[in-house]
Amino acid sequence: MSSPGAPHAAPDEDSLLRANERFYRTFERLDPVAMAALWEHSDRVCCVHPGWPPLWGTLPVQDSWRRIIANTGEIRFSLKGTRAHLRSGVGIVTLFEHIWNRSGDERQNSATFATNLFAWDDASRQWLLFHHQASYTPVMPEEPEPLLV
Amino acid sequence: MSSPGAPHAAPDEDSLLRANERFYRTFERLDPVAMAALWEHSDRVCCVHPGWPPLWGTLPVQDSWRRIIANTGEIRFSLKGTRAHLRSGVGIVTLFEHIWNRSGDERQNSATFATNLFAWDDASRQWLLFHHQASYTPVMPEEPEPLLV
Repeated sequence: MSSPGAPHAAPDEDSLLRANERFYRTFERLDPVAMAALWEHSDRVCCVHPGWPPLWGTLPVQDSWRRIIANTGEIRFSLKGTRAHLRSGVGIVTLFEHIWNRSGDERQNSATFATNLFAWDDASRQWLLFHHQASYTPVMPEEPEPLLV
Repeated sequence: MSSPGAPHAAPDEDSLLRANERFYRTFERLDPVAMAALWEHSDRVCCVHPGWPPLWGTLPVQDSWRRIIANTGEIRFSLKGTRAHLRSGVGIVTLFEHIWNRSGDERQNSATFATNLFAWDDASRQWLLFHHQASYTPVMPEEPEPLLV
């Protein structure tokens, strides 16, 4: 896996899939600074956490990540059915997120469906997330629950 | 409002907003043929009706619209907070959908948040929908319930 700051080779489907994977692995590391670096910084970013009202703009979106990360003891994602395609420089990814998370003694598992939109940033030669909508889906995880600390 | 088959002047924000509005007014008319004409016909289309699992590809997506339309007596949308922007030919629209619908004697009202993605079709000179994700949102309608027949 490339490090958060590493440039991608080119704006193709392969680098798009890696950028998408990196978003979830960064979330698992519970690092708000690394998370902020994956997003475009603009008033056009939009983020919908499951069950939340939508948030727009860098400050509200990054603040939400800081609060979520601060309130999460541990989180693991299993990504299923990922589909990615490019349209004139915009990267479109859809997938199921099977989520296990722990806050204190409370453990939860949930199944969501997400749309992630990425824009290629020529300056840093990487995909930046500018739209994330995750919503609960009736499809449930098939995997056994992973070991959480 | 332009008719469903009318070409848009150019792929700009104004025509994008009109294409988005047309999607909801077409749904209100409960016309599955007109609805099908608003969508790109490809295996890359994706549609997530609120509370449904996602559907991909023209056949499953159009079949879902036919079934929903056949089971709806009347439906009205009030669209709020619409935001639209273009990225290299891709039209990105987000909005709140306040929905009132009737099926037989049963009336429902719900609040959803939707991401609609459009691609400009050079041949027909119009925006075609290729992605729709609507999910329930904690934000509730403020308007009085409209009169349904």
